[in-house]
Amino acid sequence: MTVAIDETHDPARTSWVASAQGHPDFPIQNLPLGVFSNGNGAPRGGIAIGDFILDLAALARSGLLDGAALQAAEAASGDTLNPLLALGTAPRRALRRSVSALLARDRPHRDAVAPMLHPAHTCALHLPARVGDYTDFYVGIHHATNVGLLFRPDNPLLPNYKHVPIGYHGRASSVRVSGTPVLRPHGQLKAPDAVAPTLAATRRLDYELELGVWIGTGNLPGSAIPIEEAGEYVAGLSLLNDWSARDVQAWEYQPLGPFLAKNFLTTVSPWIVTAEALAPFRIAQPPRPEGDPAPLPYLLDAGDQAQGALAITLEVTISSERMRAEGRAPLRLSRGPASNMYWTIAQMVAHHSVNGCDLNPGDLLGTGTISGPTRDTFGSLLELSRGGVEPVTLPTGETRAFLEDGDLLSMSGRMETEGLVSIGFGPCTGTVEPARKS
Amino acid sequence: MTVAIDETHDPARTSWVASAQGHPDFPIQNLPLGVFSNGNGAPRGGIAIGDFILDLAALARSGLLDGAALQAAEAASGDTLNPLLALGTAPRRALRRSVSALLARDRPHRDAVAPMLHPAHTCALHLPARVGDYTDFYVGIHHATNVGLLFRPDNPLLPNYKHVPIGYHGRASSVRVSGTPVLRPHGQLKAPDAVAPTLAATRRLDYELELGVWIGTGNLPGSAIPIEEAGEYVAGLSLLNDWSARDVQAWEYQPLGPFLAKNFLTTVSPWIVTAEALAPFRIAQPPRPEGDPAPLPYLLDAGDQAQGALAITLEVTISSERMRAEGRAPLRLSRGPASNMYWTIAQMVAHHSVNGCDLNPGDLLGTGTISGPTRDTFGSLLELSRGGVEPVTLPTGETRAFLEDGDLLSMSGRMETEGLVSIGFGPCTGTVEPARKS
Repeated sequence: MTVAIDETHDPARTSWVASAQGHPDFPIQNLPLGVFSNGNGAPRGGIAIGDFILDLAALARSGLLDGAALQAAEAASGDTLNPLLALGTAPRRALRRSVSALLARDRPHRDAVAPMLHPAHTCALHLPARVGDYTDFYVGIHHATNVGLLFRPDNPLLPNYKHVPIGYHGRASSVRVSGTPVLRPHGQLKAPDAVAPTLAATRRLDYELELGVWIGTGNLPGSAIPIEEAGEYVAGLSLLNDWSARDVQAWEYQPLGPFLAKNFLTTVSPWIVTAEALAPFRIAQPPRPEGDPAPLPYLLDAGDQAQGALAITLEVTISSERMRAEGRAPLRLSRGPASNMYWTIAQMVAHHSVNGCDLNPGDLLGTGTISGPTRDTFGSLLELSRGGVEPVTLPTGETRAFLEDGDLLSMSGRMETEGLVSIGFGPCTGTVEPARKS
Repeated sequence: MTVAIDETHDPARTSWVASAQGHPDFPIQNLPLGVFSNGNGAPRGGIAIGDFILDLAALARSGLLDGAALQAAEAASGDTLNPLLALGTAPRRALRRSVSALLARDRPHRDAVAPMLHPAHTCALHLPARVGDYTDFYVGIHHATNVGLLFRPDNPLLPNYKHVPIGYHGRASSVRVSGTPVLRPHGQLKAPDAVAPTLAATRRLDYELELGVWIGTGNLPGSAIPIEEAGEYVAGLSLLNDWSARDVQAWEYQPLGPFLAKNFLTTVSPWIVTAEALAPFRIAQPPRPEGDPAPLPYLLDAGDQAQGALAITLEVTISSERMRAEGRAPLRLSRGPASNMYWTIAQMVAHHSVNGCDLNPGDLLGTGTISGPTRDTFGSLLELSRGGVEPVTLPTGETRAFLEDGDLLSMSGRMETEGLVSIGFGPCTGTVEPARKS
């Protein structure tokens, strides 16, 4: 998954868009891809730069681009980025280089480009791509262990975990963009000591902190993706919140896996931070603990081991209705590195396709919950509250074993490496709304 | 799920299309919907009648339709039926009534309609709809018990089975139409006594006999579909073969369910036999065995209990390469009624949406394998060979514990009720091809 570092990553490069300098997420080194609309305009592709969004449909018509960059901008002019994702790496990279040059300070294009910038606060953001299939993995080994302890105390980490990048199919239709309200779902609940289940609104609504992987070029049915080439199939990343109803999950998940506990909503941050933008933040995959089995050859690549992890710091905050009414700041629930993944993204891609399953442009892979080894890095309330028995205390004195109506949950992620300008995803948020009458 | 019986079901109605009379699948009482192409023409909607396909795009342009029937034919003129499915019941029913009248003997439209008929053997059939999401249920209680005994001898039917219509998300991208070759997939295999898994072509390739349910109108996110209204959301049925790699499945499926063991291919028969065509074949849901819990209220509807099952006879045949070379007829592996479903289709739809999950036009629900109580009605080789230890003997003397390269597997299903003309799905077939080199 090697991507060349070029002048678009230069820490010295600044933009004539003043708000890009020092922007927590969108300096000129990022240039993430999304879909936006404003006023009466149709949804279309855009690139975030500081507090603005560059209109790619307008840029495609401007005459400022040519070649592969023009092809990419034209493919990004519609209401989903699937056509752009389908083009693969080279046109996407060409667009990045052209846009970086057009936005760089001391370039002659400011007057031509400025009218194509829209203040982000005047725009609505949409799902960046139509998700054909959504797959959720389970690569956060601390999460798998923590949750395994709660669901199967005798058998937390199953024998296949260190051989198979475990994953399962999720619901594509309920993947939505950051800010979508989280309607508390109904489901069958059964307390361990109850004779029979009841239908009720979930009492154990939870979040799961994940990264979302957007597939670019797809593979043909029957053709496995070699791990050495997996990087060519990954367009970029978002944050992903795999909202979960833990009581529904506990009752329904055997033998075929989670279903209604998860498929009511999955939220992603609106911007695809591209593989190109992420390139300088690649780090070595942490070595496996001594005694762990080596991955099978189809999952093992020296380049991937050397560069398969990412220097991302993930953070989750919560803000109750009362906290907001009292003007209090959100409470940080966790903060930690994204390096606690037992399997790399390339391993996920290679495994997913080893049986010939076709991945397609706009498919979304979730990593599974990313928890660290210590409580302050746990990526779900299930883990933070140890199955609900040790609630978190909020600054108001309220407590949270699981999410309550009115809670605003927010995830963020920043790519940080010494000597480089850090970049981020933008927020991934949701506010819990009361269940509808059943 | 009550649908009116009308003149389109009249056993006395015959067609001026001679091959429709006595046709095993497509007499004038059926009129199933599909997508076909011929010559250089683009794929477009069609209706099967005897040995012919009626071109719905041509019919829409002909001036022979008006009102809701015309609206439906126009929606069926493209390369997927999703726009037609989205229209819901009334336009689909209007199209059926109009087409039935146009094709009926002694009607004056023969000269106008005949040019819109294409011999089926000159046409290619395509997937009838773009599948947004594919969900597979597990409602065949004999299958669940049989497989449970093999995977979990101590615990074959889990405590939730009789309360929850168990289902999970499958892969939408690998749903393909009948006739698609079945490329033997690779995967991680681990014999129970092996220290570690290996990557190899599956040695336990299997089929699963299922019905596929095509969703018509969808529901809005957050809005559960009441069981009394579930029938309005079901456009019709196909046959479905959930190809499975049993050795991959056994190793990977815990804790999140089947993944690569299933997602390399799912085959459906090409025609959607509509809810309207199925109406006369509705029968009472078999009563639950004494002592079984009553379904929760959201899963219980008197009308559904009275009419929620279908008088369908399902059959599976196998033909090895050698059998075909020797000119032998296919061997029947199983034959039985589709009434061995513990949950009805309406219960599947109501359960799937009870948490607010949105179903959309063209979504596909599999029932799960439909096995009867006796060996001659088992719907998979896993069950027929009791986990591989009692192989089936073919007429050539060959044996089959699981599928071998060159095997042609074929499913059929016929709706039969005394006094009515029987109708069918058309074939659901696949031939196993050797694994590619890994």
